Amino acid sequence: MKRFTIGLDFGTSSVRGVLVDVSNGNTAAEAVFPYPHGTDGVLIDAGDSNLARQHPQDHIDGLQAVIRSILNQGSTESAVEADQVIGIGVDTTGSTPIPVDQDGTPLGLRPEFAQELDAMVWLWKDHTAFAEAADITAAARELHPEYLGKIGGTYSSEWFWAKILKCARSNPRVSAAAATWVEHADLVPAILTGNTAPDGIPRGICAAGHKGLFHESWGGYPDREFLTALHPELGRIRDSLPAHARTAEEPAGYLTPEWADRLGLPEGIPVALGAFDAHFGAVGAGVGTGVLVKNIGTSCCDITVADGSDSLPDIPGLCGIVPGSVLPGFHGLEAGQSAIGDIFNWFAKIAGPGRPTGEVLADLEDQARRLRPGQSGILALDWQNGNRTVLVDQRLTGLFIGLTLHSTPAEMYRALVEATAFGARVIVERFEEYGVNTRRVLACGGIPYKSPMLMQIYADVLGKPMELSRSTQTAALGSAVAAAVTAGADRGGYDDFSSAMGAMTGTLDEVYTPDPSRHEVYTRLYGIYRNLHDAFGVPGASPDLYAAMKRLLDIKDRS
Amino acid sequence: MKRFTIGLDFGTSSVRGVLVDVSNGNTAAEAVFPYPHGTDGVLIDAGDSNLARQHPQDHIDGLQAVIRSILNQGSTESAVEADQVIGIGVDTTGSTPIPVDQDGTPLGLRPEFAQELDAMVWLWKDHTAFAEAADITAAARELHPEYLGKIGGTYSSEWFWAKILKCARSNPRVSAAAATWVEHADLVPAILTGNTAPDGIPRGICAAGHKGLFHESWGGYPDREFLTALHPELGRIRDSLPAHARTAEEPAGYLTPEWADRLGLPEGIPVALGAFDAHFGAVGAGVGTGVLVKNIGTSCCDITVADGSDSLPDIPGLCGIVPGSVLPGFHGLEAGQSAIGDIFNWFAKIAGPGRPTGEVLADLEDQARRLRPGQSGILALDWQNGNRTVLVDQRLTGLFIGLTLHSTPAEMYRALVEATAFGARVIVERFEEYGVNTRRVLACGGIPYKSPMLMQIYADVLGKPMELSRSTQTAALGSAVAAAVTAGADRGGYDDFSSAMGAMTGTLDEVYTPDPSRHEVYTRLYGIYRNLHDAFGVPGASPDLYAAMKRLLDIKDRS
Repeated sequence: MKRFTIGLDFGTSSVRGVLVDVSNGNTAAEAVFPYPHGTDGVLIDAGDSNLARQHPQDHIDGLQAVIRSILNQGSTESAVEADQVIGIGVDTTGSTPIPVDQDGTPLGLRPEFAQELDAMVWLWKDHTAFAEAADITAAARELHPEYLGKIGGTYSSEWFWAKILKCARSNPRVSAAAATWVEHADLVPAILTGNTAPDGIPRGICAAGHKGLFHESWGGYPDREFLTALHPELGRIRDSLPAHARTAEEPAGYLTPEWADRLGLPEGIPVALGAFDAHFGAVGAGVGTGVLVKNIGTSCCDITVADGSDSLPDIPGLCGIVPGSVLPGFHGLEAGQSAIGDIFNWFAKIAGPGRPTGEVLADLEDQARRLRPGQSGILALDWQNGNRTVLVDQRLTGLFIGLTLHSTPAEMYRALVEATAFGARVIVERFEEYGVNTRRVLACGGIPYKSPMLMQIYADVLGKPMELSRSTQTAALGSAVAAAVTAGADRGGYDDFSSAMGAMTGTLDEVYTPDPSRHEVYTRLYGIYRNLHDAFGVPGASPDLYAAMKRLLDIKDRS
Repeated sequence: MKRFTIGLDFGTSSVRGVLVDVSNGNTAAEAVFPYPHGTDGVLIDAGDSNLARQHPQDHIDGLQAVIRSILNQGSTESAVEADQVIGIGVDTTGSTPIPVDQDGTPLGLRPEFAQELDAMVWLWKDHTAFAEAADITAAARELHPEYLGKIGGTYSSEWFWAKILKCARSNPRVSAAAATWVEHADLVPAILTGNTAPDGIPRGICAAGHKGLFHESWGGYPDREFLTALHPELGRIRDSLPAHARTAEEPAGYLTPEWADRLGLPEGIPVALGAFDAHFGAVGAGVGTGVLVKNIGTSCCDITVADGSDSLPDIPGLCGIVPGSVLPGFHGLEAGQSAIGDIFNWFAKIAGPGRPTGEVLADLEDQARRLRPGQSGILALDWQNGNRTVLVDQRLTGLFIGLTLHSTPAEMYRALVEATAFGARVIVERFEEYGVNTRRVLACGGIPYKSPMLMQIYADVLGKPMELSRSTQTAALGSAVAAAVTAGADRGGYDDFSSAMGAMTGTLDEVYTPDPSRHEVYTRLYGIYRNLHDAFGVPGASPDLYAAMKRLLDIKDRS
């Protein structure tokens, strides 16, 4: 009898469910549930563009809808029977913390908070806590600089403690009603397994380590005194959190009878520990030591792992280094580029105003792919949305040099694609400087499948072969892989990630291999890119130019 | 009886004639003759994009056609009688040298050279002599650095000696047949006045000083030995040139009976010494001490004059400082910006591909004029065609910084307009550093009348009022002014340029005055522009960045 696992991928606007054949990773059924609340699933506030929330009911309804749907797909002959399903895995966006009550119920589901945005799900891209993030960074710099060493030097307004602090300061009523705060990735398995008592919610190392400042070396979550000094409510929430954060081979628990009934699944099947979409996406793509997964979409998330037996140094500029966060037994390393597809879409609006973006990009790509490296004389910096790794600086901006009266839109577009490839090379080189070498690059996400030109440019710039993940839904697949490992070989799954990934993940046959002569030209261009990168991005290297972008933004802010 | 003078303005594609009322500068009649040869009047070579020549017959035919036309315009009542015309003035492009034979006949008019491009008119924008210009610069740097001090440090491929050297090297037959070479501005008056013997052609200080390395301080044209070492033919041509170059109050001569008959004008009327269009354009606009004339078109030519009683120091980066070249008794100072309208037209092709340029620019202007200084956060360098003053460096390129995912085409366009204004401020400040102060800025050319936004931005950036020349044909008017001065008060003209310009030139009533608060913001933005300008444009200030643009061009050249 064939065995299947379910992967649930909770995104920004919808939740996707896949039913995956454990033997080969093939998708047997798939369903998407768009969140009905808000604008494309996001609750917004016309008065505050930083605010982005979700409604917790959408998560519950979506969970039930997609699982019911994938179980009922196919003809009677091909339909998968419920008892063939041996486990469930979950990934979500993050950091997306949710305030819950003593029963683990999201506050937003309680009648008295039904109209309260602060009682809802604080979505990853909510930036209302920018001042709080700055305060946490400043306090850590003074008292616990080791906290910042693992997160690239700056605590983000997107993250767990900043959002809790923001709520404590601006909405004491909601803050006081929260028994604890739970990352979305932790809450879904907790609900499915009935582990909803605040001190019993299984917390994964992925969310805790990358967003919650959890690290074994300083005893788990940050020091209570440190948090209390920021706000007494933070100290109280700290008390609700466990001393231990789990890695992905430990199950979150087992499906309760109630949820088994609601979903039409056997009770007692294991539910894997939840993780962020980027992390399970790396699993679904086939991450491993020496294998860098680049999820290239509107922005880019880079994930790789390093051997867990060595202790890794802090790597300056890296968003996160967390033991066990991606794969048990390995250090998980996360980096990122603030904008990739967003830059191309922006330029399509510059060079083809009023025309459909996809059409403009297809035209630009068609002309740009005929150009040779260096032919246009144009070089760009890919900082239209700041720089995540390695500069960790939102207040940087995009740049072009080399423009002449003969420069064409296609040349400028290609320069932008090349700039994102140079940005990728900065990350790969930073990894390598600290002993984390990249042997293979696996691309996934929306863009690599659409742009062979981009894939070839990345191969030529990095000087490494670029491969494509076989699955285009790597996060959901990664969740299904985690479910298969949690089920274990006894139930028809696998005993470890290595064998599960070997069977269930893979790459397409086509590999983009670097051309030595193009790589040589790009290495010269990259040298110029690095000079501009350091002059404008690194404090002290070239004070006037480092100040130039900041001063322009200051003048803009005051305008 | 009303008196009139004729101004002839020989351009790149056509010659324009105006009949001007000496009492007030008003245009009584006007005619344009497009050159019939070549592409828009320019002889080109499909195999060499640097080549640009004109056919000498077009100049002769055009001269006759436009003068005949302007004399026959109007009704019988209003028509101007030939005997009311008291003089002729001429301006041309430059440096535009022409090889001529012993009779002053352009070689291209002789049957044996009828098919020979090198025997034609070497138009200002011909850049075939780039290697020769570099050789002249190198030789001067070693042997006569004082030659370079008056021309900003670099001899241009557009100029007199570079073109003669190119012909000597690549076409000895044409070179040997040339009795001398004459600037177009000198040849037209020579022909009209019959002063065509090679050693009798009146040479104006304008062409000689700005393009021919003529300066009284080193005894006129460059040293014979210096020229002969470059090529013996240069030494021979040197021998054909006079020891004296004339200033504009000396007539070139008097109209010959033959030409009086061909043109339908009285014989013996004075013909003014010819000058370059930019110089007589400044005269037609109303140049004077403290008055900077900016002729803003595809590029920008800046002309001002300084009191002739002081000896002026060399001003680094200035194209030319020549006593008497613009107005007798004053130092003529010339600077320039390599591209203005060309940059806007280029950007219209980026942001509105396939649409008519004028329409795209009108849309951009309509949106850009609503923006406040500094509002977009974008800053540009206006180097899409290199930088003429003060960097004198063709191998510089355009730059944008401050781009975000929200940047719009209108914001980028405004940043380009502002960049050209910052470029203008660099020139004004360089003048001021050397004691040449600007009290008023007079704009002429095509763009200032079309773009009130540009005029206001220039006023706000420079912190000086911007005025518009009353005449839109300043070069032709300046030629007519010169003709009126050459005729003298006795013939119904004027005895000096001051009284002639007072009567014949003027500005429109509308003045663009700087706004103090906008000026303050622009001064902060200009500080950032200067930092970028110096980092990328000045050797030694920031070696990596100075190298960046050059290295990109090197890679491009090799691609």
